[in-house]
Amino acid sequence: MATDALSDLLARVPPADPDAATDAEARLAALATPPGALGDLGALGVRLAGSTARCPPPTFEHATVVVAAGDHGVHAQGVSPWPQAITGLMATTVAEGRAGVSAIANAVGAEVVVLDVGIATELPDDVAVHDGRVVAGTRDATLEDALTREEATAALLAGALTAQRAVGEGTQLLVTGDLGIANTTASAVLVAACTGTDAAAATGRGTGIDDETLARKVAVVEQVLARLPADVDPLGLLAAVGGAEHAALVGVLLAGAANRVPVVLDGVIAGAAALVAQRLAPQVVDHLVAGHRSSEPGATLALAHLGLEPLLDLRMRLGEGSGALLAVPIVRAASAVLRDVATLADLGAG
Amino acid sequence: MATDALSDLLARVPPADPDAATDAEARLAALATPPGALGDLGALGVRLAGSTARCPPPTFEHATVVVAAGDHGVHAQGVSPWPQAITGLMATTVAEGRAGVSAIANAVGAEVVVLDVGIATELPDDVAVHDGRVVAGTRDATLEDALTREEATAALLAGALTAQRAVGEGTQLLVTGDLGIANTTASAVLVAACTGTDAAAATGRGTGIDDETLARKVAVVEQVLARLPADVDPLGLLAAVGGAEHAALVGVLLAGAANRVPVVLDGVIAGAAALVAQRLAPQVVDHLVAGHRSSEPGATLALAHLGLEPLLDLRMRLGEGSGALLAVPIVRAASAVLRDVATLADLGAG
Repeated sequence: MATDALSDLLARVPPADPDAATDAEARLAALATPPGALGDLGALGVRLAGSTARCPPPTFEHATVVVAAGDHGVHAQGVSPWPQAITGLMATTVAEGRAGVSAIANAVGAEVVVLDVGIATELPDDVAVHDGRVVAGTRDATLEDALTREEATAALLAGALTAQRAVGEGTQLLVTGDLGIANTTASAVLVAACTGTDAAAATGRGTGIDDETLARKVAVVEQVLARLPADVDPLGLLAAVGGAEHAALVGVLLAGAANRVPVVLDGVIAGAAALVAQRLAPQVVDHLVAGHRSSEPGATLALAHLGLEPLLDLRMRLGEGSGALLAVPIVRAASAVLRDVATLADLGAG
Repeated sequence: MATDALSDLLARVPPADPDAATDAEARLAALATPPGALGDLGALGVRLAGSTARCPPPTFEHATVVVAAGDHGVHAQGVSPWPQAITGLMATTVAEGRAGVSAIANAVGAEVVVLDVGIATELPDDVAVHDGRVVAGTRDATLEDALTREEATAALLAGALTAQRAVGEGTQLLVTGDLGIANTTASAVLVAACTGTDAAAATGRGTGIDDETLARKVAVVEQVLARLPADVDPLGLLAAVGGAEHAALVGVLLAGAANRVPVVLDGVIAGAAALVAQRLAPQVVDHLVAGHRSSEPGATLALAHLGLEPLLDLRMRLGEGSGALLAVPIVRAASAVLRDVATLADLGAG
């Protein structure tokens, strides 16, 4: 049944609407601005028109970041200096509105939803975290599959449901967020596997590990890669590597796309999830906007493979969706330009 | 008397407050985020604390872009394909809320004030443009000084007054905007003169001129540079080269700084104005934030000389303040992080 729900979701993902994109290009050319003067903002407007099948696109006033949280069995291999309990603590902090993502969401005017799909520790009862937990932390992917296919599917659908609910409540723009100690390790494996890159090139320092830990992390990524069957399918890959939050974000991307609601990608966790989503439904990419270039090398590899250029590069590596949120006003501005700027004809000059 | 007013203004420009900046650094280090994870956003927060002498800095919810407009006698030398009448037409369009800057200001939540300090053509009577006109277009700087010292001072003070009035009405953050056909030519001269760069390196294609026009523009910049006395003082430089909108922006920067209200710089016109302001009062730079990297080479030269790195690079070259406005939410977020994010101690982990 979960498999049917996934098939249905995949079947609902449309490509960009060529007519709306063409209308946006024509509108841009007619504006009372010098040709090309809007730079990437103009190109973004065309992309948003294609994704939403509307020209001008919506205001994107109502934006929601979905912060998917999970823990990783591979943590046992010593890939991070942080204890696993930090994931639950940070999920609680986000829910209380006191994390980096909370402050930034507030500053740009976006809602925050926290979704637990695989946190290892118990959360306080009264905390405003959506419960979509499918595991209490994944298994150690160096030794066995991090998730079963059923668990990966369930986490994916939990993400899709959360996005679908947000869209039902009026969200016009989704933003990816994530929490999960050791999740840059799982991301490096997913990026390496999907882009055909070797472990060393795809693996970064995450929250700032030393040389020794980095060497161990690269070895762990190699070990997980070596365990993957040559013909692994996208869901099998997600199950083998994890994490539950990657699966949930795949669901967020697919559900956003299925509703023609664009999704702004944050860093390497989102990039890894997008690569898996692309393998499930290639047209999903038409609905994605790269928000911020993470300093993780895997993020750059993923964006290049997706054919996306990030709007921002502020050398942030906080995760949580913080970088992508800073791109939300740029998305709104790209739409506003198509909606509100006079054309040369309006000014009597065309 | 105008000279006295300028001296008073210069005397009021403070350097960054070291205590507030130190407090911001300490607060950043104490936050429940991995060290350095906030990247440029963290550094920006420290800068804003220093400028405003407050930690945390204000919300910057109330932001105003001052769009200074003027025309240039050097236009007669054929440096732009656009007729001079476009400046007045665009000033009217901005005042009516139908320009690129209007749409973007609306999207990010900022006010727009248009200030005429030197438009060559008459504006309609009923248009919401602040009248600070000191000339109806400057003189041709290849032949004579574009402005008298008195006119340059008056335009500077008109900009300062506009900024001061905005601050009086609650503005917490100023943004530079500009309108003026041929103003990238005057900017190239100011940048070349202030940074010791040659004309070819400082001159760009503005709104998109062809090779022939560019060659003519470089020759014009050389001609104006050759006319400058070797020991020209900052006000003399501003008068010799123009334009009135550059002078007005110098006033905006100085008045913002004098009130400890940070100013976000847009492109090459703002960069050129900032170089002149720096020569008048070096500490003004402590209050400046580079919003967007213009594609004009002079913008990059100016920012390097000022020691500023732009927050955005969206390949825009629209002017009007459009690029800088997109950085306003980033400024707000940098402040929000210092104000609202929990420290490790708050979480019981420090």
